Amino acid sequence: MALIVQKYGGTSMGSIDRIKNVAKRVKRWHDHGHQVIVVVSAMSGETNRLIDLATQISKYPDPREYDQMVSTGEQVSISLLSMAIKELGIGARSFTGGQVAIKTDNKHNKARIESIDAEKIQAQLDDGNVVVVAGFQGIDAEGNITTLGRGGSDTTGVALAAALGADECQIYTDVDGVYTTDPRVTSKARKLDKITFEEMLEMASLGSKVLQIRAVEFAGKYQVPLRVLSSFDEGQDGSFDEEFRQNVGTLITVDEGDDMEQPVISGIAFNRDEAKIVVRGVPDHPGIASGILTPISNANIEIDMILQNLSDQGLTDFSFTVNRPDFDKAITILESIKGDIEAKEIHGNTDVVKVSLVGVGMRSHAGVASKMFQVLAENNINIQMISTSEIKISVLIKEQHLEKAVKSLHTAFGLDRADGESKVAGL
Amino acid sequence: MALIVQKYGGTSMGSIDRIKNVAKRVKRWHDHGHQVIVVVSAMSGETNRLIDLATQISKYPDPREYDQMVSTGEQVSISLLSMAIKELGIGARSFTGGQVAIKTDNKHNKARIESIDAEKIQAQLDDGNVVVVAGFQGIDAEGNITTLGRGGSDTTGVALAAALGADECQIYTDVDGVYTTDPRVTSKARKLDKITFEEMLEMASLGSKVLQIRAVEFAGKYQVPLRVLSSFDEGQDGSFDEEFRQNVGTLITVDEGDDMEQPVISGIAFNRDEAKIVVRGVPDHPGIASGILTPISNANIEIDMILQNLSDQGLTDFSFTVNRPDFDKAITILESIKGDIEAKEIHGNTDVVKVSLVGVGMRSHAGVASKMFQVLAENNINIQMISTSEIKISVLIKEQHLEKAVKSLHTAFGLDRADGESKVAGL
Repeated sequence: MALIVQKYGGTSMGSIDRIKNVAKRVKRWHDHGHQVIVVVSAMSGETNRLIDLATQISKYPDPREYDQMVSTGEQVSISLLSMAIKELGIGARSFTGGQVAIKTDNKHNKARIESIDAEKIQAQLDDGNVVVVAGFQGIDAEGNITTLGRGGSDTTGVALAAALGADECQIYTDVDGVYTTDPRVTSKARKLDKITFEEMLEMASLGSKVLQIRAVEFAGKYQVPLRVLSSFDEGQDGSFDEEFRQNVGTLITVDEGDDMEQPVISGIAFNRDEAKIVVRGVPDHPGIASGILTPISNANIEIDMILQNLSDQGLTDFSFTVNRPDFDKAITILESIKGDIEAKEIHGNTDVVKVSLVGVGMRSHAGVASKMFQVLAENNINIQMISTSEIKISVLIKEQHLEKAVKSLHTAFGLDRADGESKVAGL
Repeated sequence: MALIVQKYGGTSMGSIDRIKNVAKRVKRWHDHGHQVIVVVSAMSGETNRLIDLATQISKYPDPREYDQMVSTGEQVSISLLSMAIKELGIGARSFTGGQVAIKTDNKHNKARIESIDAEKIQAQLDDGNVVVVAGFQGIDAEGNITTLGRGGSDTTGVALAAALGADECQIYTDVDGVYTTDPRVTSKARKLDKITFEEMLEMASLGSKVLQIRAVEFAGKYQVPLRVLSSFDEGQDGSFDEEFRQNVGTLITVDEGDDMEQPVISGIAFNRDEAKIVVRGVPDHPGIASGILTPISNANIEIDMILQNLSDQGLTDFSFTVNRPDFDKAITILESIKGDIEAKEIHGNTDVVKVSLVGVGMRSHAGVASKMFQVLAENNINIQMISTSEIKISVLIKEQHLEKAVKSLHTAFGLDRADGESKVAGL
């Protein structure tokens, strides 16, 4: 008997029929002797419907009232799911964030969980009930309803799993797991059975938006085994083992260290949301980088990759990337300080993408970077910028080369499906 | 400076524009130096939308989960209204039933209020904030959300007014007050400026569905002045006094005793939802009434008027009325016990209505009943049953005579509008 937390997103809860399907899956786990806590999001579309009402009243709705309002989406979901589970003859009880004392700080719209009343939940589980908890919400010390920000239901799931010492936190979603790269870019993309928290963080932040980053961080910190799997794989009724064998998804877990079997590269992430800005011919003296970047940061624009060229006759070129929606704003800011920073020219372009190799195996394998550059060179893909971390190498290339780059790297690093052409790559 | 509770129903909160109008009215009272607590219902249609979702899952949804779900309708309303009030530059704070500790018993779907945290609300008012409270809901001792039943928002309003010692509880609705009778039946119906709690209870229970009966009982018990008025009378902006003079509605208050000015009759109520059942030729011995009525009551059918004829040769006829939807069920029950009660015949009809004269003045004026019967006789209306109380006389007549009966009684008892034909009636 295990204690399992299952989280279902808005799509999985998107209609009465889907809610009934969720109830059926919960019943199968319960019938199999497991204790089940279910965390749910609002029915898809509901949160947007509410936000639309609020913005008809106020361009910037009061954050406290906004939380009081949007939290109702999940409250409806938990009630409906509990009704559906009870309809199948199993005890179920729904709880809002407040009702199981998911205490947060008082930062409305982006609150952080501080504690949870695990005893109240455990008592319900011990009574044989399925416990259904509203995701995304909590209460602050004064009893105000807070929300964790979009996608916060994943965090609620992980927090509950950590607080109750659950054996696993299962995130049901509309994909069947984490892939080596986006299957829309290469059909040879392969589902991973396992990935480490660190790799998942790099994959997620680089654009494989399967899981909320905070939830992965939280799971890593409390070492909660996290499984991403499909809520649409139904399995044959009555064959629980068979169903689970067919729908194991991807387990995100701790790095088990020097595992000889560990692949060097786990996946290839990419991000189209990049724009590159070049500040040409600035005097190469100390403080120039901060002179350029501080006004950008002050405007709440996130900076990603940064590159400073070698100095030539006392002048240097300074390049960096920002998210595409911030491109125009960043250029405007730089133009306004062009005189102050004594720049010769400011230009940029938005037809770039970032491609990243991610893998904990990189730590113990030399040569990943040079092999990556060689593969790209063989494909006539020019590298504009490079950045590296312990488990990641990222390059900025022209957007038109994205597919070719991902496909060739995917094959070269042995990530292709078993039924594809190239399975193992020698480093 | 007064402390005012204002309650707005689903229609008054039915759209974003209407919510903005409510906010404007609240602002006018606030600007005039009053402390304002606002109680709101769910936006019209919302509760039915939620119930529809629930019944797609379960024919008889779990009562706890049902309350957890439907209570979100009011939660959305309080948030939106608070946003709208803040948008006008006034401090506002919304509270669910749970957040201001509207403690109830644990009878889901029909809970009764036991206590309220008045201090928390008073502190907000003293800070200059408008307090917006979700109607219709509370929490039980274990923190489960409960609801007071349909129309319970009126009760929430009165309970808050009682707990905080408010000067007045204003129920804003889609009519501009309580009328002497239904204006759809006679155009001479006149709005009452004032009515006693007792009269209002008789008017309400007899079909003038302006206010929830429990709210009136509650207001009477705690002597909370209750005012029914229109939420659609806008008044000119800037002229608060003028607006209020034009929209005073009807004040429901305590009976001030032997007021010489007090009218004998305050209004004429009627109820179309009546069906008459006659059990003919039963042996006239003790216990026969209970032998007939107990099986009916046991089936949860409410009995209204009851009449037992004089005995003739040891046999008697026994008549009573039930609500029309219960008619068939009641007949079926009686047929099944016809043998036991030794009845000769059981029959009934559903083309009857009850017409009632209501007025506290009746206590000190003789002759109301005989005048009523005389007016009906002059109009060739046959009386099938009669029942009386201290402040009410009801008759059961054929439905086809309803309009004629109400019109002639309305005129005869001096209830017609000043601009109508007959203003004062001599008793």
